[in-house]
Amino acid sequence: MKIREILGQLARGEISLDEADSRLALLSVAHIGEFARLDLGRHGRKGVPEVVYAPGKSAEQVRKISAGLIEHSGRAIISGLDREGWQDLATEFDGMVAAGNEAAGTLVVRGRDYEKPAGGGKVGILTAGTADVAVAEQARIMAEEMGCDVFRAYDVGVAGVHRLAEPLSEMVDAGVAVMIVAAGMEGALPSVVAGLVAVPVIGLPTSTGYGLGGEGVTALLSMLQSCCPGLVAVNIDNGIGAGATAALIANQAV
Amino acid sequence: MKIREILGQLARGEISLDEADSRLALLSVAHIGEFARLDLGRHGRKGVPEVVYAPGKSAEQVRKISAGLIEHSGRAIISGLDREGWQDLATEFDGMVAAGNEAAGTLVVRGRDYEKPAGGGKVGILTAGTADVAVAEQARIMAEEMGCDVFRAYDVGVAGVHRLAEPLSEMVDAGVAVMIVAAGMEGALPSVVAGLVAVPVIGLPTSTGYGLGGEGVTALLSMLQSCCPGLVAVNIDNGIGAGATAALIANQAV
Amino acid sequence: MKIREILGQLARGEISLDEADSRLALLSVAHIGEFARLDLGRHGRKGVPEVVYAPGKSAEQVRKISAGLIEHSGRAIISGLDREGWQDLATEFDGMVAAGNEAAGTLVVRGRDYEKPAGGGKVGILTAGTADVAVAEQARIMAEEMGCDVFRAYDVGVAGVHRLAEPLSEMVDAGVAVMIVAAGMEGALPSVVAGLVAVPVIGLPTSTGYGLGGEGVTALLSMLQSCCPGLVAVNIDNGIGAGATAALIANQAV
Amino acid sequence: MKIREILGQLARGEISLDEADSRLALLSVAHIGEFARLDLGRHGRKGVPEVVYAPGKSAEQVRKISAGLIEHSGRAIISGLDREGWQDLATEFDGMVAAGNEAAGTLVVRGRDYEKPAGGGKVGILTAGTADVAVAEQARIMAEEMGCDVFRAYDVGVAGVHRLAEPLSEMVDAGVAVMIVAAGMEGALPSVVAGLVAVPVIGLPTSTGYGLGGEGVTALLSMLQSCCPGLVAVNIDNGIGAGATAALIANQAV
Amino acid sequence: MKIREILGQLARGEISLDEADSRLALLSVAHIGEFARLDLGRHGRKGVPEVVYAPGKSAEQVRKISAGLIEHSGRAIISGLDREGWQDLATEFDGMVAAGNEAAGTLVVRGRDYEKPAGGGKVGILTAGTADVAVAEQARIMAEEMGCDVFRAYDVGVAGVHRLAEPLSEMVDAGVAVMIVAAGMEGALPSVVAGLVAVPVIGLPTSTGYGLGGEGVTALLSMLQSCCPGLVAVNIDNGIGAGATAALIANQAV
Amino acid sequence: MKIREILGQLARGEISLDEADSRLALLSVAHIGEFARLDLGRHGRKGVPEVVYAPGKSAEQVRKISAGLIEHSGRAIISGLDREGWQDLATEFDGMVAAGNEAAGTLVVRGRDYEKPAGGGKVGILTAGTADVAVAEQARIMAEEMGCDVFRAYDVGVAGVHRLAEPLSEMVDAGVAVMIVAAGMEGALPSVVAGLVAVPVIGLPTSTGYGLGGEGVTALLSMLQSCCPGLVAVNIDNGIGAGATAALIANQAV
Amino acid sequence: MKIREILGQLARGEISLDEADSRLALLSVAHIGEFARLDLGRHGRKGVPEVVYAPGKSAEQVRKISAGLIEHSGRAIISGLDREGWQDLATEFDGMVAAGNEAAGTLVVRGRDYEKPAGGGKVGILTAGTADVAVAEQARIMAEEMGCDVFRAYDVGVAGVHRLAEPLSEMVDAGVAVMIVAAGMEGALPSVVAGLVAVPVIGLPTSTGYGLGGEGVTALLSMLQSCCPGLVAVNIDNGIGAGATAALIANQAV
Amino acid sequence: MKIREILGQLARGEISLDEADSRLALLSVAHIGEFARLDLGRHGRKGVPEVVYAPGKSAEQVRKISAGLIEHSGRAIISGLDREGWQDLATEFDGMVAAGNEAAGTLVVRGRDYEKPAGGGKVGILTAGTADVAVAEQARIMAEEMGCDVFRAYDVGVAGVHRLAEPLSEMVDAGVAVMIVAAGMEGALPSVVAGLVAVPVIGLPTSTGYGLGGEGVTALLSMLQSCCPGLVAVNIDNGIGAGATAALIANQAV
Repeated sequence: MKIREILGQLARGEISLDEADSRLALLSVAHIGEFARLDLGRHGRKGVPEVVYAPGKSAEQVRKISAGLIEHSGRAIISGLDREGWQDLATEFDGMVAAGNEAAGTLVVRGRDYEKPAGGGKVGILTAGTADVAVAEQARIMAEEMGCDVFRAYDVGVAGVHRLAEPLSEMVDAGVAVMIVAAGMEGALPSVVAGLVAVPVIGLPTSTGYGLGGEGVTALLSMLQSCCPGLVAVNIDNGIGAGATAALIANQAV
Repeated sequence: MKIREILGQLARGEISLDEADSRLALLSVAHIGEFARLDLGRHGRKGVPEVVYAPGKSAEQVRKISAGLIEHSGRAIISGLDREGWQDLATEFDGMVAAGNEAAGTLVVRGRDYEKPAGGGKVGILTAGTADVAVAEQARIMAEEMGCDVFRAYDVGVAGVHRLAEPLSEMVDAGVAVMIVAAGMEGALPSVVAGLVAVPVIGLPTSTGYGLGGEGVTALLSMLQSCCPGLVAVNIDNGIGAGATAALIANQAV
Repeated sequence: MKIREILGQLARGEISLDEADSRLALLSVAHIGEFARLDLGRHGRKGVPEVVYAPGKSAEQVRKISAGLIEHSGRAIISGLDREGWQDLATEFDGMVAAGNEAAGTLVVRGRDYEKPAGGGKVGILTAGTADVAVAEQARIMAEEMGCDVFRAYDVGVAGVHRLAEPLSEMVDAGVAVMIVAAGMEGALPSVVAGLVAVPVIGLPTSTGYGLGGEGVTALLSMLQSCCPGLVAVNIDNGIGAGATAALIANQAV
Repeated sequence: MKIREILGQLARGEISLDEADSRLALLSVAHIGEFARLDLGRHGRKGVPEVVYAPGKSAEQVRKISAGLIEHSGRAIISGLDREGWQDLATEFDGMVAAGNEAAGTLVVRGRDYEKPAGGGKVGILTAGTADVAVAEQARIMAEEMGCDVFRAYDVGVAGVHRLAEPLSEMVDAGVAVMIVAAGMEGALPSVVAGLVAVPVIGLPTSTGYGLGGEGVTALLSMLQSCCPGLVAVNIDNGIGAGATAALIANQAV
Repeated sequence: MKIREILGQLARGEISLDEADSRLALLSVAHIGEFARLDLGRHGRKGVPEVVYAPGKSAEQVRKISAGLIEHSGRAIISGLDREGWQDLATEFDGMVAAGNEAAGTLVVRGRDYEKPAGGGKVGILTAGTADVAVAEQARIMAEEMGCDVFRAYDVGVAGVHRLAEPLSEMVDAGVAVMIVAAGMEGALPSVVAGLVAVPVIGLPTSTGYGLGGEGVTALLSMLQSCCPGLVAVNIDNGIGAGATAALIANQAV
Repeated sequence: MKIREILGQLARGEISLDEADSRLALLSVAHIGEFARLDLGRHGRKGVPEVVYAPGKSAEQVRKISAGLIEHSGRAIISGLDREGWQDLATEFDGMVAAGNEAAGTLVVRGRDYEKPAGGGKVGILTAGTADVAVAEQARIMAEEMGCDVFRAYDVGVAGVHRLAEPLSEMVDAGVAVMIVAAGMEGALPSVVAGLVAVPVIGLPTSTGYGLGGEGVTALLSMLQSCCPGLVAVNIDNGIGAGATAALIANQAV
Repeated sequence: MKIREILGQLARGEISLDEADSRLALLSVAHIGEFARLDLGRHGRKGVPEVVYAPGKSAEQVRKISAGLIEHSGRAIISGLDREGWQDLATEFDGMVAAGNEAAGTLVVRGRDYEKPAGGGKVGILTAGTADVAVAEQARIMAEEMGCDVFRAYDVGVAGVHRLAEPLSEMVDAGVAVMIVAAGMEGALPSVVAGLVAVPVIGLPTSTGYGLGGEGVTALLSMLQSCCPGLVAVNIDNGIGAGATAALIANQAV
Repeated sequence: MKIREILGQLARGEISLDEADSRLALLSVAHIGEFARLDLGRHGRKGVPEVVYAPGKSAEQVRKISAGLIEHSGRAIISGLDREGWQDLATEFDGMVAAGNEAAGTLVVRGRDYEKPAGGGKVGILTAGTADVAVAEQARIMAEEMGCDVFRAYDVGVAGVHRLAEPLSEMVDAGVAVMIVAAGMEGALPSVVAGLVAVPVIGLPTSTGYGLGGEGVTALLSMLQSCCPGLVAVNIDNGIGAGATAALIANQAV
C-alpha cells in the first residue's frame, strides 16, 4: 500500500485520523527498503532472493525459516549446509527439492506452484581446478534461481593456459554478460580471463591452498591486486554472493 | 590478417610453405588475446581503455607512453599521479586535457579528432564522506571515458542513514544499472545500499581510517564480509577498477 | 582487621611495636585493592560479580570454585562452558540453577537465601542476526545478575534497516541507559544504532563470518573504526564483559 | 513537525493531498534519525555534538564546515588537526576559540551567545605516561564540551602501581561515573584500574610503542583481552570517541 | 602433429583448406604450452611430471585421474594424501606401487613397462630435525621420479652445527648440484648451509613450530630474509615443488 | 680430552698417527659445541640437558630416543606429550619416572644411578591464573632437573594486585635470582612483577585468551612491549625454555 | 619516613592515633613498590636505573626530567633520541656527559659526585652485522651504567660461522655470565650462539631486513621459535631492555 | 691443508707440538667454511661474490668496505644504495665503475686487472611491467658479475599473455638454464612462465602494488602458492639473491 493511498483515504474521510496515523506508522517501519525496491523494480523484477545461511543456526531454525520462506515466497534457498544438514533437509523437503549440490552445501526447495523468474541473463562460470567446483556450483545454483542461463567450464586452470581458450570462445559466442572465475591457490585465473574478455569478471576465491597465504587468502589478494580493470571480487568461498551479483548484471543485459 | 587467409594463400600457391610457416608463427604470438577480444567484440564495442598507471614510472616514461597512446588510440588516461606529476602532465598536454581531477591524480588527454565511445550506460556513484571523494572521482572519470552517464551523490554517509534515501531514489528513478559506493573507516555504506537497491553494487574502499584496521583495511573487509548478496569489491583506492567494471556492466544494460 | 585497630592496640600498649609492625606489613598486602573498592563502594553497591571462566579449568576445578563462590557470596556465575560441561554443572547444582543458557555456555547458580542486587538499571540488547543470539544471551544473563532490567530485540540486522526502527523506539521509550549491539560478519549494526540513539552503545562482535576477516575480526574492526562517537567495543564473543559494563553504566543512571 | 500534525491538517482540509504527500515525503527522509533522537531526548538533552574530523579534508573545507556548524548550532569542535592546521584555524576564528589543545589537534570554536550544555556528569581521565597526554586531552575537551566535569591524573603508569592509588581514591571520592584510561606500549593500566574501581572504564590505547605490536596495537589488544569485566575500548588514539561515550555515561548518572 | 606438417599437407593438396583450417584451430588451442615445451625439450627431455594433488578431490576422482595418468604417461605421482587415502590407493594399485611414503602422503604408481627417465642429476637433501623428514621425503620421491640420484642426511639441525660438517662434505664430494634443506621452527639451517656451500640451496620450510610465528611461518620468513645469496624458498611443506625444481637444476648440470 | 693432549700423546709416540687421526676426527665433529661448552664449563657444570620434543615424532621414536638418552646421560626429559603419549611413556618407563606432570605434557625418566646436578640456583615461578599452571609446571620441572630450588605461587593474577604482594615478598626473602611469570589473556602480570622486583623476570605467555589477539598472542606482545626493563620473554607456552634459561641464570648466582 | 618510625612515635605517644593513621594512609600509597624493592635490596644494591624514553616527549620535557633525575639520583640515562635531540641534549648538559652514542640515540649524564655502582658483572655482546651495532651499543651503555664489564664482538654474523668461534671463546674465557646477541634479517645468530655456550643468551632483534617479515619481525620470531633452550628475547631494537636484564643477571653471578 | 698432514708432520717431528697446536687451532676456526668451499670448488670456480649491502651502513663504511674488497678480491659489488649514495660512490670510484644501475641502487667497481669469472651460464630475465625493471636489473648485474650471459625481456606482463610467447621462445632457443621472472601487484607472471617452460623459474616479487596485500606481499604469496612445480621464490625486491642463485644454477649447466 502506498503512502498517497492512505493520505487519499484520510482526505476522503474513508479512514479516521487515528487509523491513518497507525497505518502510516506501520508503513514507515517497512518503508525505506520497500520504497527503494519498488523504485528499482521499475527496471524489471530482478531482486535477489533471500538466502538462508545455515551456519550458526540450529537444524530446527533452518527448517522453520525455510518452511516460512516457501510459504511466503514459494521458494527457499539454503546455503552453508554441512553434509549431514544437507541430507536432513533434503529428506525433510522430499519431493520439493528443485536444485542443489551436496558438496556445495546448497539446496533449493520450491513449493508446488512456484515459477522461477525468467531473468534471461547469461552467465559464464569457470574454475581453475577441480577443488574449486563446489564453490562454483553455489554460484551456478544462485544464478539459475534468479533466472539465468549458466555456461560452465571447470578445471581450465592457468597451469595450462591453452585449455582456457576454447571454453572462453564458446562463452563469448554464447553471449554471456558476465563471468565468474573461481580459483584458489595463487588465484591467477581471474586476472588472465579479465585480460582476455570484454565482459565484467567476478573473481571468486576458494579456500584451497596451504602454508603462508593459504586457505584462499592469496587467491583473494591476487584478485584485489590484479592490474586488469574489469575484475571485481567477493570474499573467499562466497559463491552465493558471486552468483547473485552476476545474475543482477546479466539480467539487466538482456 | 586471419589464419584462413594465410592458408588460402598457401593453398593457392601465392606464398611458399616457409612464408606460410613464418606468418603463422608471427600470428600465433598475438593470437589468443586478439582472437578472444574480437569474439567478444561482436557483442558491442565496449572494451576497457588502457590506463597508464604512473607510480613506478618516470615522468618521461609517463609522458612518452601517454603520447603514444594518443597517437595510437586518440586518448590517454593516466592515473596515480601525484600533484606535481599531474600539473606537469597537464601543462605538457595543454589544450588537449579533456577531463581530470588533480586530487584524484587522474588526467584524460584526447587528440583533436577523438570521439568518446557512446556507451550509454548509467552509473551511480555515492561516497560516505568527503574524504572518499577523490577516489570516487577516479571512478567517475573512468566510467565517463567509457561513455557512461554518471550520477553522483557525495557525503551521504551512514552516520545519517536518512541522508541516503533521497539520492538513492533519484538514482533509481534515473535508471542506473550499477552503483559504486566509496567508503573508508568502517565501510558500512555499501552494505546498507546493497540492502536497499536491486542493482549490483561495487564497494570501493578508500584509505581513510586510523589505528587498528585503518588505511581502508576495515572498509575493504566489511565489504567482503557483507551479508548482502549483490555487493562485490575492488581493492582500496582502486577507483579506476571500480569505474571500469561499472561501465562494463552499465553499457551492457542499455 | 583495620589499620586503625592496630594503631589503637599499639597506642594502648596492647601489642608491642614489633607486633604492630609485622601486622601492618601483613595488612598492607591486601590493602590497595580493598581500600579502593571501599572508596568506590560509597557511591552505591554496584560491584561486578566474579565470573568463573571455565576454559582451561578442569570440570572439578570449575565445580569447586563455583561451590566456594556460592558459599562465600551466595551465587556463582560460570561462563565459557561447552555443552557437556554445562549439562554436568546444571545436573550437579540441580535445584539451585537460577538462570542460564546452554548455547551461551553460561550458568547461574544461587544459594537458597541469595537475593539478587536491585540495580534497577535498564539495558537494551540487540542482535544483527540469529547467529549472534548466544553471545547476546551471555550479556543478558550478566546484566540481569547485576540487577538490571534487560530489553531484547534479536535479528534486527542491517540487511533490513527498517526492521530496526520499531524495537529501537520501544527501547528508547522504555528508558534504556545503554545498548549492547551484537553483530558478526561486517558488524555494521552497532554503528547504525549509535548513529540513531543518544545513549552509549557497546559493540559486541561475534565470531561469525568467513574467509578474510572472518571469525568476528571484521565485526570488531568495524566497531573500532566507526565514525559514530558514542560507540565502544569489547573483544569478540565477550558477552560477559559487555553485560557487566552495561550494567555498571545503567545502574548508575537510575 | 510531527506526522500526526500533517495528517490532522490534511483531515481538517488545511492542506491539500499533494501538500501532505510532499511534506510526508520530506519528513520520511529525515525521519528515522530525528525520530529516535527525539525519543531519547526525553532522558535529557545529552546528544553527542558533531565533530569535524579534519584528515582528508582541505583547509578550506574544514573552515567552511566549522563556520556552518557555528552558525547552525553555535559551536564547532574540530579534531585531527596537524600543528599548521590548528594554528591556521585558531587564527581564523580568533576571539571565538573556547577550548583546544594544539598537541591534541583539537579545537573548539563557539559563537558569541553559545552556552555549553550543563550535563553535570563527572568523568575521570588517567594516562599511563606523558606520551599519552595529547590523546587524553582530546577526551577531556570532548567531555567538557558535553557539559562534564573532568578530573585528570596524568603519568600514573603501571611501572609504579603505587603512584596510582592516590589519584584513584580522589576520583572515586569526587564521584566520577566513568574513567577513561589512556595507555600505549603494553597498555596494562586500564586493566589494573578496572580491577580496582567499580565504575565502567573506557580503555583508550595510544599509538606509542615500537617493534612488534607497536603503534598502540598491543595496547588495544591488551584492553580487549583484559580479564576484568567493566572495561571496554575504543580504537587507537580515538580520544574524541572515548570522551563522547564517557560523557554520555556520566551525564546519565547525575 | 606440427604446424609445418599441416601446412605441408595443405601445400601438397593432401588436405583441403577447410581441413587445414580446422586442424590448425584445434592445434592453436593446445598451442602455446606445447610449443614452448617442445622448444625447451630440445635441451633434453627433463620436463616435470604432472602430480595429482589429492586435497579437495574425492577418493574416486584421485583414483580416476591416477588411472588416466598411468594409461597416458605410464606413471602417476599422487601427493597430499592422508593416511587413509594413502592406504586405499596403495591397495587399489597393488603391485604397481613403485615408490612412496605414507607419512609424506606421497605415492608413485607405475605401469608395467614404464621406465623412469634417466635424468642423472645429483640432489642433496638435509633436514634440521626428525619432524622435517616427511616433507623432505616428498622432495626425495619427486626428484627420484625425475631421474635424479638423491643423497640424504636427516636430523643434522643447527642446535649442533658440528653434526652438519660431515654430511655436507660427503654431499659436496659426491657432486650434488643443488641442496634442499628442510627446516621448521626458526628455520636457520638453510641459511647456515647456504653460507657454507657453493651450490644453490632450496629452503623447504616445514609446518613445525608453535606460538607466534609457528606452523612454519617463521621458518619460511627466515629463508626469505636470509642474508646468504644462493638461497631460494618454496612455501611451507611444499616438498613436491622443492624436489621438482631441484631435479630441473640438477639434471641440467649433468 | 683436549686437542693438545692428543697432539702430545702423538708427539711422544704414545699413540699412533691413525689413533691420533681418529681421536681428532671424533673430537672435530663434536668439536665446536663441546669446545665452547668446556670453556664455559669452567664457570660450573650447569649445561642445559637435552629435551626430547615429542610433537612430530612417532611414539616409537620418542621411546627410542628417550631410552638412548637414559643410557647415554642417565636421564631423559620429554616435553610436548599429549595425554595418551604421556600415559604410554609413563607406563613404558614404569619405575624410572622421576618427575612429570601429565597436564604439562612433560615427563622425566632417570636411570637407577642418575644423580641430579646440584645447581643450587633459586627460581621463583608465578602464574596469573589457573589456566597458566600447566605451562608453568614445564618450567618448574626443567629448572628442578637442572638442580634448582623452585618457589611457586600460582593464580596471583593482576585482577587482584594485592594478592601478589605476599608471595613476591616471600620469594624475595628466599633469595630467588630470577622469576618466571606465566600469564595469558592480556599478559600484564610480568610487567607488574618486573616493576616491583630487582631480579630479572622471564615472561612466559600462555595460549589462553580468545578473539582478536587470543591464543597468547596479546600476552606475548605485552611482554615484548613492556616499559619495565628487566623483563625478557620466551614464545607462547614455551615453559621448557623459560625454565632452562631461569636455571642458567640462577645457578650462576649461587 | 619509615612505617616503623611512625609506629615508634605513636607507641611513645609523640603523635596521636589520628596523626599516625593519616601518616600511614599517606605512606601506604607509595608502599608496595618501595617495600618490595627493599626486600630484594637485601640481595645487593643492583636495581635498574630509571631511563628517560624520549619519543613522545617534548625536548623541554626530556630536559627537565633529565635534570630532575640528576638532582635526585645523580644520573640520567636518556634513550630514543633522534640525532637532533641527542645533539641538543649533549650541548645542554655539556661537561656532564659521561657516556653515550649518537647513532644509538642514547646519552648518559652524570652529576659531579656521582659514582657508578660497582656491579662487577661480566656481559658479552655480539652483533651479526654492522647494521646491528647501534642497537647493541644501547645495551652496552645500559649494562655499563649498571656497573658491568662489557665484552664486545661486532659483525660476527652467521654468514661466516667460523668468524664466530674466536670471539665466543674469548668471552667464555673472560667469564661472561650472559650474552646479548643482536641480529636483524633472519636473526639466526642468537640461536647458533645459544647452541654453543652454556650461559643464558638474550636475543636482541634489530629493525633491519626488508620485504615480508622485514623491519626485524623475522629476527624476533626466529629468536622466539628457536629450538635452543637458554635463549630469551626482547622486542625489536630494545637494546636498553636487553642491557638492563643482562646486567641484572651478570651482577648476581659475581 | 688436511688435519692428517699436520698430524703426520708432528709424528715425523717435522713440526713442534706448539706449531701443530697452533696450526690445528687455526684450522679449526676457519675450518668448516673453507673446507666445504674447497670441496665444492672442485665442481668449478663458481662461488657467489660478497655483496656490500648499503642500508644501515654509513657512507664512509660502505666506501671503506668497498675499497677493501677491491684490494682483496679485485672487485666490489654494492647494493641497496639510494640515489645520493650511488652518485657519491660512482664519483668516488670514478674510472673503476664497471657496471651498475642507479635506479637499481647497484654498483660494480673493479680494480684494474680484475677479470670477471667466465661462468658461461645463460640466464633469462623477464619483468611483468616497467616498474619491475629496477629490481630485475639488480639480478642482471649480479648474474653477469658471476660470468653469465643474460637475456632480457621487460614489460611482457600477464595483461597481454600473447606478448610473452615470443621472448620466451627466443630465450628457450638461446638455451637459458634458468629464468628469473620479476613481478609486482598480483605476481601471476612467474606462475604462467613456469607453466610454459621446462627450466627452473625464480620468482622475484617487487614492491609494487597498493592497498591490501600491496608492496609486493601478494606477488610473493602468489609465487609461494603457485600450483606450478619448478617455481621457487626470493623475498620482495631481492634482485641480488635471485641473480646469484640463477648464476649458480646456470653456471653448472654449461
